[in-house]
Amino acid sequence: MKIGILTSGGDCPGLNAVIRGVVLKGSTSYDLEFVGIRDGWRGVVEGDFMPLTRHEVKGLSKVGGTILGTSRTNPYEGERGGAENIAKTLYGHKIDGIIAIGGEGTLAAADRLSKDGIKVLGVPKTIDNDLRATDYSFGFDTAVNIATDAMDRLRTTGDSHQRCMVAEVMGRHVGWIALHAGIAAGAHVICIPEVPMSIDEIAAQVASAHDRGRAPLVVVSEGFTLEGMDEAYSDKGLDAFNRPRLGGIGDQLAPMIEKITGVETRATILGHIQRGGSPSAFDRVLATRLGLHAADAIVDGAWGQMVAMKGTDIVRVPFEEALGELNTVPRYRYDEAAALFG
Amino acid sequence: MKIGILTSGGDCPGLNAVIRGVVLKGSTSYDLEFVGIRDGWRGVVEGDFMPLTRHEVKGLSKVGGTILGTSRTNPYEGERGGAENIAKTLYGHKIDGIIAIGGEGTLAAADRLSKDGIKVLGVPKTIDNDLRATDYSFGFDTAVNIATDAMDRLRTTGDSHQRCMVAEVMGRHVGWIALHAGIAAGAHVICIPEVPMSIDEIAAQVASAHDRGRAPLVVVSEGFTLEGMDEAYSDKGLDAFNRPRLGGIGDQLAPMIEKITGVETRATILGHIQRGGSPSAFDRVLATRLGLHAADAIVDGAWGQMVAMKGTDIVRVPFEEALGELNTVPRYRYDEAAALFG
Amino acid sequence: MKIGILTSGGDCPGLNAVIRGVVLKGSTSYDLEFVGIRDGWRGVVEGDFMPLTRHEVKGLSKVGGTILGTSRTNPYEGERGGAENIAKTLYGHKIDGIIAIGGEGTLAAADRLSKDGIKVLGVPKTIDNDLRATDYSFGFDTAVNIATDAMDRLRTTGDSHQRCMVAEVMGRHVGWIALHAGIAAGAHVICIPEVPMSIDEIAAQVASAHDRGRAPLVVVSEGFTLEGMDEAYSDKGLDAFNRPRLGGIGDQLAPMIEKITGVETRATILGHIQRGGSPSAFDRVLATRLGLHAADAIVDGAWGQMVAMKGTDIVRVPFEEALGELNTVPRYRYDEAAALFG
Amino acid sequence: MKIGILTSGGDCPGLNAVIRGVVLKGSTSYDLEFVGIRDGWRGVVEGDFMPLTRHEVKGLSKVGGTILGTSRTNPYEGERGGAENIAKTLYGHKIDGIIAIGGEGTLAAADRLSKDGIKVLGVPKTIDNDLRATDYSFGFDTAVNIATDAMDRLRTTGDSHQRCMVAEVMGRHVGWIALHAGIAAGAHVICIPEVPMSIDEIAAQVASAHDRGRAPLVVVSEGFTLEGMDEAYSDKGLDAFNRPRLGGIGDQLAPMIEKITGVETRATILGHIQRGGSPSAFDRVLATRLGLHAADAIVDGAWGQMVAMKGTDIVRVPFEEALGELNTVPRYRYDEAAALFG
Repeated sequence: MKIGILTSGGDCPGLNAVIRGVVLKGSTSYDLEFVGIRDGWRGVVEGDFMPLTRHEVKGLSKVGGTILGTSRTNPYEGERGGAENIAKTLYGHKIDGIIAIGGEGTLAAADRLSKDGIKVLGVPKTIDNDLRATDYSFGFDTAVNIATDAMDRLRTTGDSHQRCMVAEVMGRHVGWIALHAGIAAGAHVICIPEVPMSIDEIAAQVASAHDRGRAPLVVVSEGFTLEGMDEAYSDKGLDAFNRPRLGGIGDQLAPMIEKITGVETRATILGHIQRGGSPSAFDRVLATRLGLHAADAIVDGAWGQMVAMKGTDIVRVPFEEALGELNTVPRYRYDEAAALFG
Repeated sequence: MKIGILTSGGDCPGLNAVIRGVVLKGSTSYDLEFVGIRDGWRGVVEGDFMPLTRHEVKGLSKVGGTILGTSRTNPYEGERGGAENIAKTLYGHKIDGIIAIGGEGTLAAADRLSKDGIKVLGVPKTIDNDLRATDYSFGFDTAVNIATDAMDRLRTTGDSHQRCMVAEVMGRHVGWIALHAGIAAGAHVICIPEVPMSIDEIAAQVASAHDRGRAPLVVVSEGFTLEGMDEAYSDKGLDAFNRPRLGGIGDQLAPMIEKITGVETRATILGHIQRGGSPSAFDRVLATRLGLHAADAIVDGAWGQMVAMKGTDIVRVPFEEALGELNTVPRYRYDEAAALFG
Repeated sequence: MKIGILTSGGDCPGLNAVIRGVVLKGSTSYDLEFVGIRDGWRGVVEGDFMPLTRHEVKGLSKVGGTILGTSRTNPYEGERGGAENIAKTLYGHKIDGIIAIGGEGTLAAADRLSKDGIKVLGVPKTIDNDLRATDYSFGFDTAVNIATDAMDRLRTTGDSHQRCMVAEVMGRHVGWIALHAGIAAGAHVICIPEVPMSIDEIAAQVASAHDRGRAPLVVVSEGFTLEGMDEAYSDKGLDAFNRPRLGGIGDQLAPMIEKITGVETRATILGHIQRGGSPSAFDRVLATRLGLHAADAIVDGAWGQMVAMKGTDIVRVPFEEALGELNTVPRYRYDEAAALFG
Repeated sequence: MKIGILTSGGDCPGLNAVIRGVVLKGSTSYDLEFVGIRDGWRGVVEGDFMPLTRHEVKGLSKVGGTILGTSRTNPYEGERGGAENIAKTLYGHKIDGIIAIGGEGTLAAADRLSKDGIKVLGVPKTIDNDLRATDYSFGFDTAVNIATDAMDRLRTTGDSHQRCMVAEVMGRHVGWIALHAGIAAGAHVICIPEVPMSIDEIAAQVASAHDRGRAPLVVVSEGFTLEGMDEAYSDKGLDAFNRPRLGGIGDQLAPMIEKITGVETRATILGHIQRGGSPSAFDRVLATRLGLHAADAIVDGAWGQMVAMKGTDIVRVPFEEALGELNTVPRYRYDEAAALFG
């Protein structure tokens, strides 16, 4: 059997470890043959492939990014897109099935292609940890470590200058990175998309930490929104025209916090450094195990499913389980941490 | 209520984060009072206590070691030991119960004291990850990260000199650190206490990696034993008298591997650096959550139990569940990784 | 003799190591007594002091920030400012002299106070490495390491997405951090305040790297300015109104680079994480040595001077040598690296 | 002109960065052609070469080890060795000159070959920093950072258990790594080859730190020798037969320290992890600059010399300057740090 492997969506530490795991297990234990598909679904649609043997995956467990490239191409779009065209392209290259490593969009496409008759196996990838059906996804632990390390550094500056430091971390729709890095770094305020907070609540927690002699540390998910941001901004006597427009939410919160509390406040947007570079050991192990099990799943003909982590085990779940609703931070997990901010 | 907290056994990254979690939750949400018990059970037996308020736990989530000190004292030994004496000592200091953070020995003592009428709550601590009843224990992730980072470094030396590098990691009775660090770093041989291997099997895997042009990387748990080590040693024409005696198993394997394969081989014993220093973000989050839940458990009167991690949740389990059998690496987890060595 | 120590200006990894070095050497070898001055010159002016013995400096060599606090107060301003008032305040507290650890502004104030009769010894502090009279200053090596690590991470994202990544690093007036981190991380374009470049030159280097199949990596000092930025912006058909206004130069370059080259481009502003956290070993050694020598200088009565690094030695130089002109990147150092970008 | 490049002796972080610097500068600015010589002088003697273009050096500045391989072959030994044979081999492959990156042995051979008419340019490499004629050598800063990080970790274990921790670091003949890592990590005793100490002096410093409530931290160079070690051993009532024989000096000091002071003592031999892995930013910059200047030196015909670091500059020095005497730690540098231990 000849299997194509693709990585799709934003890059994530551990993608290469998955690829290595699949190829080593598939070629050693099962005599499967692999080809690399370039730049996600684009390579499927355009028939852009590269060799993928033991040789290509040598030493990859610690290498960040993806040797296959990635893109956000939708396989149902374009002249050569759609299940029928793709089936022809795969047939022409004697590719029997696809392993698609990607997030919600990728897995939704994989689900649709699968229902349209293409053999697809999924591997969940989300640095934000926003997919249900897997306890944790690779890349998340690395991102939390990077954010935590950055916040450890910000804290010494805050302490020296008696400043409030605001760190904006990744998380468009879910607050897992902010919650975990916030707990790990000892943040005094954690702002996540799942938990609405007003600027006055945030400022009150900042002021409380400051009153106890601490340099307040605020972590905010990029996807957090303050209700009535513009109104809040002008209410505080800040010029809405001068409000940072293209900066992140961190840049927007900082002047409001400073205005209300009187505590000098600085924001840092961690940005892309959270998703690049060498994966943590946890992510290497998780990604490698997902890859090893993906090879097993292919041999078992478990198409239309994805491999996932449950407790300490790797299991298989249908695509649908991962789709639809996001894996948001449950309220009890946020409340659990509340004693740390108080 | 006034609660004493102790840390016992070998130190472990995350101990301070547990202490901080308990104190912040207990004092903020429940109005509990805490005292620190110095040097594990020694402090209980000798009545050696220290203040433990919010102030003392400030900024502790990232600090390695334990501010309370630790020892391997057995609370049933010595003139002032035993449940009856301890009950008196605690009563004299108005201490209502104890949170004992420790490994198997500590939890066994806690279980016995609990049955003898002392109010004890446990928090599992094992850098080796050898306790059943918790999916993972804090400290383990940090140790795996340190071992992985060290092996990444050893690999470049191996590659440059075409040498076999042997890394000895912690794990007296179980091979979790070797297994996870071995997967993460791409080791070619993983030797763990649970899986018997002969020197010839090890050498064969080394030779196979070398024949594929790789610099062989071997990871071995400190608790791994080669059956018939002395015989194996002299069989290979090595002088048993010159066999490293006080070095670790890594020091002993290296000359045998070199003798059999002809590949120059060097050993490194990672030792204590695996258990010190700042915890990884994963361990800080896990340890903090265990601490927060321990405070809840006290208020619920859940004495005689310990808090533990199951999947993504923190649960309570009776002491017995953690005791008796060790959490060894199951054979399927070792075999799962076999394709990586091949 | 009783000596006050202050830290002034932006925080910097190594400040605590200097303080520790002074106190250990001064109290062990010379029987000097020390007091900590809170928040830079503010503490001198307001007479705000704290105890500073061996006990307070325990374990400080690896701790980021400054235990003394810092501020940007000018000692010649305010009702209680000025040399005469300060002399009275110091006399009242029986403080014989001051060690001032700070950057250009601090050392200029120290120079003036010194000429006005106050006994001041300087220790140069600049994370940007912009002070003449010292080969390197502590904090700089740590900042370069952090920036390099971040750029290593950005590179994997760039490679996976075939994007151009722009990293903005510290350096208001000089480009040392950008130059060193750019060399270390293998940047394809290095934009520093000392070397004027047009957007077309920058874009040409980006395009050249992209044409060679590389994901272009651009590092830019925060103080770099593009001549005619607004014109350049609208020339490229970008809406000047939408130009990021409060973001850094990195945010401003990215859309222009993307517009000209057609290569998707993302910016990351590293910001405050470059100046916080534990110092590198190089900075700990340098800072500690400066502290040790500062104690010697006091005993030698070398007031009006500062300690500095020359080659591998610590020397003394008059304040003036450090003032006036900045330590800019000489053109030959920039040109030396040009072959790396080509 | 066609130039061969070789790396010789123990591997060292930064070797690849030198190679990259030479090749980028030489091929971009001067139209030089390069070939890689495999495994140091062995490749010269046996005529074992590999292609070395821009393509091969892509992304190498951060990669540990050497892509060329290394060995300890002496070019004057063996049937095909000696200047005359080598001249023929180089002539046969149209190689005009050699860049030899290596330590004292390598540079001594280069000097001799140079005097015998072979065109050789040297680049100094020593992780121990034991070469005169260069202020610092690449690899040293990385080693000091790794040793410091390890000692930071050991300290938390020492503190928790009130133990003395002994760290053995690299340094066969000189104590630079021990001195710098010891200063950086706040060691209480620094034992280096240049400064004789008796076991009683060491124990006295350990006891003094312990009496002040500190967990004593001892750093010892692998090349440190205690005068009369065996006598010292049996004098302390320790069984000389059980003395660790193949372990390092750290393993030997620990039981003696424990015996004399009564403080529980543990040793860790850091070993090979100090010389592998990704170089620090300092080492990447230094190594890259040496490479760039080596290309200049070739074009200038500066054969028989080596490039070296003086202050902040890269200069050229004749081979002899680097040979003969080692760059030992001068006594004033050791004494300078003494106040830190006291």
